[in-house]
Parts: sequence; structure tokens; C-alpha cells
Amino acid sequence: MTNIKDKSLQTYLDELASKTPTPGGGSAAALMGAQAAALVGMVCNLTIGKPKYAEVEAEMGVLLDRSEALRERLTGMIKADVDVFDRLMACYGMPKETEQQKAARSEAIQSVLKEATEVPLECARACFEAIDLCRIAAEKGNAGVISDAGVAVMSAYAGLKSAALNVYINVGSLKDKEFADRKAQELESILEGTEQAVDDVYRIVKERL
Amino acid sequence: MTNIKDKSLQTYLDELASKTPTPGGGSAAALMGAQAAALVGMVCNLTIGKPKYAEVEAEMGVLLDRSEALRERLTGMIKADVDVFDRLMACYGMPKETEQQKAARSEAIQSVLKEATEVPLECARACFEAIDLCRIAAEKGNAGVISDAGVAVMSAYAGLKSAALNVYINVGSLKDKEFADRKAQELESILEGTEQAVDDVYRIVKERL
Repeated sequence: MTNIKDKSLQTYLDELASKTPTPGGGSAAALMGAQAAALVGMVCNLTIGKPKYAEVEAEMGVLLDRSEALRERLTGMIKADVDVFDRLMACYGMPKETEQQKAARSEAIQSVLKEATEVPLECARACFEAIDLCRIAAEKGNAGVISDAGVAVMSAYAGLKSAALNVYINVGSLKDKEFADRKAQELESILEGTEQAVDDVYRIVKERL
Repeated sequence: MTNIKDKSLQTYLDELASKTPTPGGGSAAALMGAQAAALVGMVCNLTIGKPKYAEVEAEMGVLLDRSEALRERLTGMIKADVDVFDRLMACYGMPKETEQQKAARSEAIQSVLKEATEVPLECARACFEAIDLCRIAAEKGNAGVISDAGVAVMSAYAGLKSAALNVYINVGSLKDKEFADRKAQELESILEGTEQAVDDVYRIVKERL
């Protein structure tokens, strides 16, 4: 099957809208994160080499390396969300006639649910990092393309808040409450202060337009 | 040249990150809007036909038609942003040796700048509409896929705030102040209350997870 990242935007949107459960919101969240990282990369690429921005050239080079690495991670998560969903559905389809089968099925579901919690949490972490990179791009990047840093931060924020919803769903179904609480707490610590950080970056961009 | 919507996600992201100025934030904004509409469509498609949701079936049918029409509009805007940018660059490249050439060039730039204001403003209007559709999906859609309505609203909001930045840039360069003020005011009236509306939809989704 074609890797989702190799599908066209039109096909991706068509499949998103369709009644097939994947791709869904988890892939959309990862795509928004990847898009944010790509836009940070664009700001770097259009800042590096401009005499006016020679002073921040080295910093932009480091930022570009970070944003490109982050983009690769987030692009991979577009597919990871589909994969873990498919594995979860396979577990739900396991036989449940005997007590032994029921126990094996439940154990398999719980095991994959932990992965299904980890995938959007990892997306949330990556989007959080992207917001930080957006701030640098917004403060130091070429003012001529600074709106792209603003689009990037909104995209990263949407990716983060979207991934959060998928974490909430999965922690709610976990029987291992200690694991669930730990993941939920990590998510809250990521979300804390994020709205303010995003507002700050957006404001910086607006001031530099 | 390949229409941008027929390019793969990977190619789109690569081109976004590259130093070529298009695609840029305007296309990213339209894609987020289209993605929001697609996710509303998904919620409708996974609600229609379910006996538990028979009561809202007709409403979901109407919502699906509206979201699919909106998706088509927004998908078209991914390319429209590139097109108007290319036209604007062509104007900036016009000769400016003689006074007559300067005047013709300036007139051409101002004319295309009006279009370049209208394109993201139209994207902002469409994303605003999408937020309204997200609310219906969040309130009435199948609870089993309700997180997708939450991802949709964040995507639409990011699209709207991103499009707004592109409106701000272009109105700032317009010499026709009456036109510029009118467009800026329309944008402000769209933005007004949007944050609260988005927060409300997100909260409804969280409560129904």
C-alpha cells in the first residue's frame, strides 16, 4: 500500500473525508506539525545568504537543521497514526469465545493502546518543539517572509491541540492507571503555557509584518 | 506544471521548506481549511447510517453537503495563493526605466495586490464557515469519532489566523486606503469572537470523548 506521505494532497483530503477511519485526526495533527517545521525551514532558507541577515546566519543554519529533523519525525508520524490504528482494530477483531481468548484479546488491546497513547503524545512533544523553533524564526528570520513563521506557529499549535485529543481518548481506555496518569500528566505539562507562547509568537510576527 | 493539489504530501512539504517562495503560508492556510472541511465530512460519513444517530441523519446529510462544497472551495485556494503570488512577482519584474513604465508597473502591482488581499480574505471567510460546521459536527456527530471534529476546529482556526496574516501584509501595501480599510474591517469582523467559538467547540468535543 502506498505510504500516505506519497499520496497527493487531493487523495489525502478525499480519504480523510471518506467513511474509512484512516487517515483521521491523528494523521492530520502530524501533518500540521510537519507543515509547521517545513515553514520554519522556509523562513531559514530565505534568511540564510541575505547580507541584511548575516548576523543571524549561523543561528538560522542551526534552526534549519533542527526544523528539518523535526519535519522528518513529524512526517513519519502521519503514517504511524494509521499503523497503530490498524493494529488496534486487528486486536479488537481477535476471537473472544473462550475465557482464554478473551484474556489474550484484552491483553493485546491494552498493549496496543499504550502505543496508541504514545504516538499522539510523541506528536504533541514534537509540535511543542516546533512552537519553540517558530519563536526563533519569528524573532530572527527575514522580515520579508515573517508571516510564514506566524502560519507555522498556528499550524504547530493546531497539531498540538489535535494530538492532545487523541491522547485523552486513549488514556481513558487504559487499564494501567499508573501509566495512563503518567502520560496524561506529561501532556498537561506540555500544554501548560503553550497558548501564551503561541500568542507571543503570533504577536511578534504581526509586529514585524 | 502540476497542480499543487496533485503533488504528494512529501513533495508539498519539501517545496514548502525550500527557498522557493511558493508554496508558502497562504497555501498552508488553505490546506488547513480544506483539512478541517474534510474532517467534518468524515464525522458526517461515520454518523450517517448508524441507527444510534438516526435522529440527526438528515442534519448530517446537509452538513456533509456543506462541508464538501467548502472543501472544494478551500482546496482550490491552495493553488490560488500560488497563482496570485506569481502574478504579483511578474508585476514587480516589469520595466521601470521611464516614468510611463514606472506608472504602468505601479498600477499593475496595485491591481494584483487587491487580488492578493482578496485571496487570503476569501480563505479567512471559508475557514470561519468551517468553524461553524465543526460546531455542528461536534454537537451532533457520532461520539466515537468526535475527536476528529476537535482536530477539524483547530485546523480551521489555524487556517483562519494564518490567512489573516496574509491579509494584513497586503492591505499594508495598498494605496487605495478605502479598499484596504474595508478589507481590514471585514477581516476584524470575521476574527471577532472566533477564539471563543473555537474554545467552545473544543470543549464540547472534550466532554463527548
